[in-house]
Amino acid sequence: MVCVALFGAGRIGAIHGRNAAAHPELRLKYVADPEAQAAARLAAEVGAEVAAADDALADPEVAGVIIASSTDAHLDQCLWAAAAGKAIFCEKPIDLDLARATAAAPALAEARLLVDFNRRFDPHFQALKNRLDTGVVGDLETLNITSHDPAPPPLSYISVSGGLFRDMSIHDFDTARWLLGEAPVEVFATASCLIDPDIGEAGDVDTAKILLRTPSGKICLISNSRRSGYGYDQRIEAFGSAGAARAGNVTRSAVSTWTEAGAVTDGFENFFLERYADAYRLAMNHFAQVLKGAAPKAGLIEALAALALAEAAEQSARTGAPVRL
Amino acid sequence: MVCVALFGAGRIGAIHGRNAAAHPELRLKYVADPEAQAAARLAAEVGAEVAAADDALADPEVAGVIIASSTDAHLDQCLWAAAAGKAIFCEKPIDLDLARATAAAPALAEARLLVDFNRRFDPHFQALKNRLDTGVVGDLETLNITSHDPAPPPLSYISVSGGLFRDMSIHDFDTARWLLGEAPVEVFATASCLIDPDIGEAGDVDTAKILLRTPSGKICLISNSRRSGYGYDQRIEAFGSAGAARAGNVTRSAVSTWTEAGAVTDGFENFFLERYADAYRLAMNHFAQVLKGAAPKAGLIEALAALALAEAAEQSARTGAPVRL
Amino acid sequence: MVCVALFGAGRIGAIHGRNAAAHPELRLKYVADPEAQAAARLAAEVGAEVAAADDALADPEVAGVIIASSTDAHLDQCLWAAAAGKAIFCEKPIDLDLARATAAAPALAEARLLVDFNRRFDPHFQALKNRLDTGVVGDLETLNITSHDPAPPPLSYISVSGGLFRDMSIHDFDTARWLLGEAPVEVFATASCLIDPDIGEAGDVDTAKILLRTPSGKICLISNSRRSGYGYDQRIEAFGSAGAARAGNVTRSAVSTWTEAGAVTDGFENFFLERYADAYRLAMNHFAQVLKGAAPKAGLIEALAALALAEAAEQSARTGAPVRL
Amino acid sequence: MVCVALFGAGRIGAIHGRNAAAHPELRLKYVADPEAQAAARLAAEVGAEVAAADDALADPEVAGVIIASSTDAHLDQCLWAAAAGKAIFCEKPIDLDLARATAAAPALAEARLLVDFNRRFDPHFQALKNRLDTGVVGDLETLNITSHDPAPPPLSYISVSGGLFRDMSIHDFDTARWLLGEAPVEVFATASCLIDPDIGEAGDVDTAKILLRTPSGKICLISNSRRSGYGYDQRIEAFGSAGAARAGNVTRSAVSTWTEAGAVTDGFENFFLERYADAYRLAMNHFAQVLKGAAPKAGLIEALAALALAEAAEQSARTGAPVRL
Repeated sequence: MVCVALFGAGRIGAIHGRNAAAHPELRLKYVADPEAQAAARLAAEVGAEVAAADDALADPEVAGVIIASSTDAHLDQCLWAAAAGKAIFCEKPIDLDLARATAAAPALAEARLLVDFNRRFDPHFQALKNRLDTGVVGDLETLNITSHDPAPPPLSYISVSGGLFRDMSIHDFDTARWLLGEAPVEVFATASCLIDPDIGEAGDVDTAKILLRTPSGKICLISNSRRSGYGYDQRIEAFGSAGAARAGNVTRSAVSTWTEAGAVTDGFENFFLERYADAYRLAMNHFAQVLKGAAPKAGLIEALAALALAEAAEQSARTGAPVRL
Repeated sequence: MVCVALFGAGRIGAIHGRNAAAHPELRLKYVADPEAQAAARLAAEVGAEVAAADDALADPEVAGVIIASSTDAHLDQCLWAAAAGKAIFCEKPIDLDLARATAAAPALAEARLLVDFNRRFDPHFQALKNRLDTGVVGDLETLNITSHDPAPPPLSYISVSGGLFRDMSIHDFDTARWLLGEAPVEVFATASCLIDPDIGEAGDVDTAKILLRTPSGKICLISNSRRSGYGYDQRIEAFGSAGAARAGNVTRSAVSTWTEAGAVTDGFENFFLERYADAYRLAMNHFAQVLKGAAPKAGLIEALAALALAEAAEQSARTGAPVRL
Repeated sequence: MVCVALFGAGRIGAIHGRNAAAHPELRLKYVADPEAQAAARLAAEVGAEVAAADDALADPEVAGVIIASSTDAHLDQCLWAAAAGKAIFCEKPIDLDLARATAAAPALAEARLLVDFNRRFDPHFQALKNRLDTGVVGDLETLNITSHDPAPPPLSYISVSGGLFRDMSIHDFDTARWLLGEAPVEVFATASCLIDPDIGEAGDVDTAKILLRTPSGKICLISNSRRSGYGYDQRIEAFGSAGAARAGNVTRSAVSTWTEAGAVTDGFENFFLERYADAYRLAMNHFAQVLKGAAPKAGLIEALAALALAEAAEQSARTGAPVRL
Repeated sequence: MVCVALFGAGRIGAIHGRNAAAHPELRLKYVADPEAQAAARLAAEVGAEVAAADDALADPEVAGVIIASSTDAHLDQCLWAAAAGKAIFCEKPIDLDLARATAAAPALAEARLLVDFNRRFDPHFQALKNRLDTGVVGDLETLNITSHDPAPPPLSYISVSGGLFRDMSIHDFDTARWLLGEAPVEVFATASCLIDPDIGEAGDVDTAKILLRTPSGKICLISNSRRSGYGYDQRIEAFGSAGAARAGNVTRSAVSTWTEAGAVTDGFENFFLERYADAYRLAMNHFAQVLKGAAPKAGLIEALAALALAEAAEQSARTGAPVRL
């Protein structure tokens, strides 16, 4: 059993904490959170101790740190954990500021850093990737990624989120890079505030479509919306030279009803906690492998590249012109 | 252009009349119906003359007769048309009484008689048959035929229909024979009156499940209901040694909506006039081929065999015991 | 933490053992199996001790027993566990012999006995049940249960299985009773040996269709096959007065590929260990509730009723006549 | 019966000619085509006379002209027909040159001109439009239009097609305008030659994604490819404030097979002649209504607007910058 510490006992921290505690090879030793109550409650649930982050890092038994704190703390905690020689599992994004994150890169270059781009661990998207890798649809030419949230987050979240592109699209930028097998060199984004004018007043957008272009001419569309009205819409279509592969939405069950209105499937998984429950489990399992020496499937390079695309998309949406990278 | 006459200007007669009139190789010369108004209206629509059945049969230019009159007239009209040397397209069932139909068989043995078992002409079921014939699912072992009407017919129709098995299941008996490639030798039926007690008081049932068994041990289920609540339910599942082939329901369009409730497809085609519109067209086209010498895909033998299964099913449902044929 | 003991360390025993060990409220204290190696291996994996069944029953700390031994041991072990005052989680069937099981009933009448009819715990079938309970499809009238295995078991298993009806259909009999809300009073079964003649020589069948009928005239079809060619086929269609509800097959992922051949979904879950993984977890969770006093969702009455239907179906298939219960 | 003349006896001319001939209110009197043989063959098939275009226009009995000639003849023939006071059914595009078409606009302003944007007549897309109009998905916010051909046309066609945007995307531009209910004011297109380098050498592209933006901030994606590998991919997703509505691909039949590989549907309709057969029939029916005085659903304004979007998209793809209209 390898000991790990968790920084952050909020919603996503609880997910990672429970997954670490249930993993047969990991022992979740510490939970650290500035909110003492949250830390205590989660620690009790998963059989861990409450500790200050510093103390957890100072414990030589702790081999890895799970960073699920608020976004503005991610980068500093990564640096502290790297300095302490710990393996790192860090929630996305690693930071909201590309310049700051790039400046920190040398200090993280040697760290065993796994960034939680959860789509890479999702069994459905992994199955899609496997399908593409077998060549059944030939050479990949274009991608359509649909990523719509069920409903907008509270405005308090919007204001610290870094904006739609850094907060939401960032997953899709990483997915695009993962599937395209080529780094996009041009980004064009057009965005609107159609759902809630308060989001616009907070300086953000709630609806966007983004086009990425690679050197070889592959094209990727990302469709984002803060509100779908029908649950979490997480789909990918990959068009290749010999056909297409698609990952569809996941329904709550295989049940449908037939009435006068037609055939009605069960609803889609409502949001990321349900839709990506398996992905989070598999990401933690991958972290257990990283702790044994495996190379992280997504690390600093992926984090910086996705952030760079997010900044480019934001600039494009603001200026109305495509941005070359 | 080959001339044909239509006997019967009701709902199904109008379908066949229009299809004959629109067929590039057929000329619908006469419409005959005891209801003078109905005959006149349809004749005007399709550019035909109103005539008495006798006169139409006496016209040497008429090569074929389409019999879409009331069921109790089918057999006599077949006999007259056969005696007059005309090719015959006869609505199902050829008669409600197996003994009577069997007695008439010698007189019809030489006739070019096409019985309108419309499932055989339906593009979806034909595609299923083609799939089975290619062997993609191996040797056929069992069949599940679902055949549920959207809503029960008026009681006036029930009382002259010959009962659920002769009126409704008869299509499925023919489909079973067509797909099984073997004549069933045992029939077990269990039936209920669950939809409308008036149907029961009229001496009929409205819900039935029927099992057929062939000499080699293949088994076919037929599921019948006079009411589905969601449109016309016409499906077949064929289970073979290497997989299954299925013909699903046909929706009105390829449109679906996604809402909180899930994904909702467009409704199913509501009833036989819509669901089998193509089948009726293709059946008339087949009759044009029969008029040129082709062998009918379904004739006297098929009509008698399906009727025999209907009688056996009725007997089984009444006695509670399986019936051997 | 409530202590439980596991009898049987085979394939299904391992499933239940792991689920018990992972359950937050259960502690799997003992694993008992005549095969010492199997017991030792599983005990090591789940952190339990190897023990003789007697010793496990003698430990007052043990509150419940999980019986996943060979079928012929189920009933005796139930009786011992009941005599020892333990709550019981017993794999189906409770016995292969209805008379023997019925004779044991008085001794089990007071026991807290949960019989593992896994369909009742499957989230998909539970969602179907919920849908029916809301009345969205009106009053239930007929059911079509499809239950086809991917491939036949080894002959060695066939010969001790009790035959298709007791081994395989028994799940579907329980499902039928659960959903119909009425006890069937008539069974008609027709069965064949179409897949492997060796199964026939072993005195069993491999293909069957069964019709059940309730006092109010509801009808249930069960379609069974020992081999599908496409994975585990586990579906239910429930036809009601206002529509139908259906539980479809579960695919391995939400991925499909589009090629010249059409749209190809990912494969179906291959067999019960994968298809019912969640059901087994939820069944164990229900056992934890039973240990805290909840009424078992399926107990002795359900076990005997399903077994009675299995015997009736076998008799019907053998005699060719329906059997009244 | 209203008399019409057909200009153009090629592939699409034959479709329109047959539909006109089969329409109960239309009489196809003339077929005109510079290729005498093609004109004669089609005229014989549909029971029309061969005539020179001039002579057909000079016949006062001819009330309408169907223009299905080569694209470069469309505009002149429209002008001649308008001058002769005939109603016009013109294949898309009305011309390849926006300036030329705009210059001709005054002379066509009074003409009863129906432009054959077939998507508007397709029952599936019409059903989608109806769904949007009912408000079931709330206010429309964004659109994803997928329009991929099964395989690229011959290079000889490419070189006279006007390029991907004027030849292929033009349908989607019209569809976007139809569904958005607002004229796009910004176009960004990115395009590649990924399928066949010869297409690139001919100065064209074969793969494109296009973003349109309306004044109110609605966004529409158009995804185009000259080759899918799986038939004609013609889909629309409309995202609204309360859900989404989608028109999926149309399969050849409702048949699927289940094998080890999963569930395989029947293939998609292969190309426009099959996929839009109903649309062409309904477009001709609409022309019959126009001949009786109905307002054309798509006329000069729609033709010019779609062409303007095509020119803008081409310019955007060429310059790499969005184009404002």
